[in-house]
Amino acid sequence: MPSVAASDLATLLVSCSDRRGLVAALAQVLFGHGANIIDSDQHSDPSVKHFFQRIRFDIAELMTDRGTLERAIAEVAERFGMRYRLLYGHQKKRAVIFVSRYDHCLVDLLLRHRAGELGCDIPAIVSNHRDAESTALQFSIPFYHFAMDANRAEEQQERQLKLLGELKTDLVILARYMRVLPSSFIDGYKERIINIHHSFLPAFVGQKPYHRAYERGVKLIGATAHYATSELDEGPIIEQDVVRCSHRDQIDDLVRKGRDLEKVVLARAVRWHLDDRILVYGNKTVVFE
Amino acid sequence: MPSVAASDLATLLVSCSDRRGLVAALAQVLFGHGANIIDSDQHSDPSVKHFFQRIRFDIAELMTDRGTLERAIAEVAERFGMRYRLLYGHQKKRAVIFVSRYDHCLVDLLLRHRAGELGCDIPAIVSNHRDAESTALQFSIPFYHFAMDANRAEEQQERQLKLLGELKTDLVILARYMRVLPSSFIDGYKERIINIHHSFLPAFVGQKPYHRAYERGVKLIGATAHYATSELDEGPIIEQDVVRCSHRDQIDDLVRKGRDLEKVVLARAVRWHLDDRILVYGNKTVVFE
Amino acid sequence: MPSVAASDLATLLVSCSDRRGLVAALAQVLFGHGANIIDSDQHSDPSVKHFFQRIRFDIAELMTDRGTLERAIAEVAERFGMRYRLLYGHQKKRAVIFVSRYDHCLVDLLLRHRAGELGCDIPAIVSNHRDAESTALQFSIPFYHFAMDANRAEEQQERQLKLLGELKTDLVILARYMRVLPSSFIDGYKERIINIHHSFLPAFVGQKPYHRAYERGVKLIGATAHYATSELDEGPIIEQDVVRCSHRDQIDDLVRKGRDLEKVVLARAVRWHLDDRILVYGNKTVVFE
Amino acid sequence: MPSVAASDLATLLVSCSDRRGLVAALAQVLFGHGANIIDSDQHSDPSVKHFFQRIRFDIAELMTDRGTLERAIAEVAERFGMRYRLLYGHQKKRAVIFVSRYDHCLVDLLLRHRAGELGCDIPAIVSNHRDAESTALQFSIPFYHFAMDANRAEEQQERQLKLLGELKTDLVILARYMRVLPSSFIDGYKERIINIHHSFLPAFVGQKPYHRAYERGVKLIGATAHYATSELDEGPIIEQDVVRCSHRDQIDDLVRKGRDLEKVVLARAVRWHLDDRILVYGNKTVVFE
Repeated sequence: MPSVAASDLATLLVSCSDRRGLVAALAQVLFGHGANIIDSDQHSDPSVKHFFQRIRFDIAELMTDRGTLERAIAEVAERFGMRYRLLYGHQKKRAVIFVSRYDHCLVDLLLRHRAGELGCDIPAIVSNHRDAESTALQFSIPFYHFAMDANRAEEQQERQLKLLGELKTDLVILARYMRVLPSSFIDGYKERIINIHHSFLPAFVGQKPYHRAYERGVKLIGATAHYATSELDEGPIIEQDVVRCSHRDQIDDLVRKGRDLEKVVLARAVRWHLDDRILVYGNKTVVFE
Repeated sequence: MPSVAASDLATLLVSCSDRRGLVAALAQVLFGHGANIIDSDQHSDPSVKHFFQRIRFDIAELMTDRGTLERAIAEVAERFGMRYRLLYGHQKKRAVIFVSRYDHCLVDLLLRHRAGELGCDIPAIVSNHRDAESTALQFSIPFYHFAMDANRAEEQQERQLKLLGELKTDLVILARYMRVLPSSFIDGYKERIINIHHSFLPAFVGQKPYHRAYERGVKLIGATAHYATSELDEGPIIEQDVVRCSHRDQIDDLVRKGRDLEKVVLARAVRWHLDDRILVYGNKTVVFE
Repeated sequence: MPSVAASDLATLLVSCSDRRGLVAALAQVLFGHGANIIDSDQHSDPSVKHFFQRIRFDIAELMTDRGTLERAIAEVAERFGMRYRLLYGHQKKRAVIFVSRYDHCLVDLLLRHRAGELGCDIPAIVSNHRDAESTALQFSIPFYHFAMDANRAEEQQERQLKLLGELKTDLVILARYMRVLPSSFIDGYKERIINIHHSFLPAFVGQKPYHRAYERGVKLIGATAHYATSELDEGPIIEQDVVRCSHRDQIDDLVRKGRDLEKVVLARAVRWHLDDRILVYGNKTVVFE
Repeated sequence: MPSVAASDLATLLVSCSDRRGLVAALAQVLFGHGANIIDSDQHSDPSVKHFFQRIRFDIAELMTDRGTLERAIAEVAERFGMRYRLLYGHQKKRAVIFVSRYDHCLVDLLLRHRAGELGCDIPAIVSNHRDAESTALQFSIPFYHFAMDANRAEEQQERQLKLLGELKTDLVILARYMRVLPSSFIDGYKERIINIHHSFLPAFVGQKPYHRAYERGVKLIGATAHYATSELDEGPIIEQDVVRCSHRDQIDDLVRKGRDLEKVVLARAVRWHLDDRILVYGNKTVVFE
């Protein structure tokens, strides 16, 4: 990544039906306004005849103003029937982390945040338990506890949604949050909720994947980061990885080995999302690494 | 592995309920007859309280004869309720390779065999197609074609079984053999049929796993070598591995990347089996690598 | 990769000092002539302020002719001080494979070639030994033997160079060729000779890397594919990979495990080169995977 | 690992010249005293004709006392010329962590310790800087700062040694400690100092390995955990791993990716050491995983 001030960076993410002239049209409109393309990655999927592009550009020497550039991009987008997002580097995303009892992913994300690996704000940690409260305190991040008694789960979820709204949340990270989210929640944050599942999906969908991996006698265990959808563990996969295991590994060992995997896989997915590197189409992702 | 002549090597594979004194009893009986333990690996599974051991020993300076040693081992085995197998290094196993149309695993195994990687004889290649005939000829291995018309599949399978018997087959390798084997076949070669499945089981059980991996948008594809059982793709897993893929990979790319995986994973499983490194229990394997 | 006929595909590889307007200028010139960009990948290296791009485009509906397009590209290139290569899909590259005694990489490449994985012609196999002659025969590829007696090595190398010229060789693959090539040879095929070294360079430069890996007690062994330069094992690295080993692995085991690595690593590098995915700068490569 | 109380576990690590009867002799002496072998792993290195064994056994139902068992083992050891260590599960090892400015390995080890992954006590964190003091406080571990001005480095190192002695230190972990230790220090803790080096040794011995990896244009970066010896970065390797990188990775990216590697590789090495799984011979390790 080039040494451009974050505040001078902008990212354009585009997807549309594939046709001639797309790359040229976008390059032209940016160049014509004095934006300098720093990095451009593009993909055409022949099986669905769809086009995807990520363009990162420097707007320090824009010859017009942002409004004019935005209108010009909107015009090109309309002409070609593009879906697009335009994101400015000076707008840090706001990521809220949800956690239940296992806190390894939470602590890992907070450490990365502190080390400057994640370019986002973390305005809140949300949990259905109190276990993570002291960790939140240590990292000076507001902690919100929502007890999930059967009789008021629905009410609590609405309060959670309200909080997310108030915090102007851009991204929800489910860092081993063990509650199923209602559709209303998921629909409100489409392609903006990242979950970590502790198996190599689609193997071991659902609960207790390490136990089931142990039962099946697999020789590798995995972890999968994906966008949450209303169908559990079926959302678009962002990243996966595996680690070797053997007959010597009991369930405890799988859990321990898996922790290291979950942390790394979730962190990669979160970084890519924050960096505007992911486009979703159908139930899949294009990740411009 | 030590520099002992293959003909002086013997391997004892043992499994039984875990209890005191097992290791000592086996070490003692071997030592007492002048056998020298070269390599010993052992595993106790606390969840099922089961014991597994593989002992490789040198019988060059046996103080008694093999028969006496065998009777002594049988006696210990009976005392402790052990299941065991005793295998001599001078007895090369006889492996028959089954293949359909895709021949990459077949060719890979034949090349490894020629390079001395696999210490076995290959008395036959069996196929339901004629595609591999010229390859068999090149490697000077007898080729048997069994056409599988719907109306005589059963008869052909019986002829196959008869052939395997005549060839004194120790191991059947399903190197991308695309026919389901009947139970009679599988029962006759329990824990002696190795299949390669082109997915990371239990993900994508069944047909066309690469197509389904593509549909699901996974970020890794896998291959699994397992012992065949009467439940398709459900047998004890011997070895698995994965390779990274991305949105750029079309199905053809997955197939190509997968070929390299399948070859390596199948070859490892076959080597371990031929080397008497695998013990099956329940639906799992202990692999003494 | 999209379903465009190979004969309609062209690839433009560009590198130059980084400056504004590069992406737009190239997109514009292609679009203006009716070429349709199918795939474009680009990289700016901030540390050396250098720009790299690979554009693959469809010329089926070119509004002008190739000559006109070529002149237009040349003009843009001159304006921006670009080094570039323009390659047409209908021109299959011609790759000559050099081998000594170990033939696993050779056989692997020939199998991949036969399976359609490598889009090239292989007009010759060259060796300083006769061992590979029968393999060449099997695959119906002309075999050239150049005995390398001390007193006529130089003369033989000149004859090799002459042969490469006559065969219109685009790429030389050193598939475990154990002779050092003279500078004259290397200079004539700059960035067109790919060598496989059986270690994770820069560890174990030079001879007998497996022996030295064994001595050092490493826990992973590696293989490296690189462009050959006049400094042995110091050329630009194209691809590397590793495999796990342990105290149980003797040198023979490392050699065996390494064979599988060498094959895969060399094949990847060759594929990328044939697919015009590699740009060299300084002593490094940009690989547009 | 079986469900035996830690206090009932003992581990015997043995190495000696290979000869007949070693396995039987050890099994016999343990069995004869009522110790139950739970796990036994053994290795014979044919190239140096050396024998290695790790036996983990349960002493809950010892028929004699520990002293008697110890004398019996000592006797066998003398008879066969064995070097051995006998370790009891109830004796938690005491590990002191040294750190300089980069604290990711330190924090990672402390989190693992808190999660129960490392069965040791951590009586102190030692540093030549004050950066890690607040982390030490957070985890309630005594922090010792030794300023390393050129004129009193020697004196400070002596004070460090004295402290280690007072703390009855079993293991020193150099978690990115950037000072070279004097021979006196290293000799006092032979095979008991674990260092993490941020490269795939023997590539990039010495300083700034990520910078040099970047310069060389490698496609994988690595990390190596090894026992410290008086020759820098030349000690016996315990564990190594790598992660893929590309032309897109600047030095900052390599440093970031490397952090994740360093943590995992160091943690594995420390776990194995604490678990008495490592035997050193020559300049290599046998790791009974």
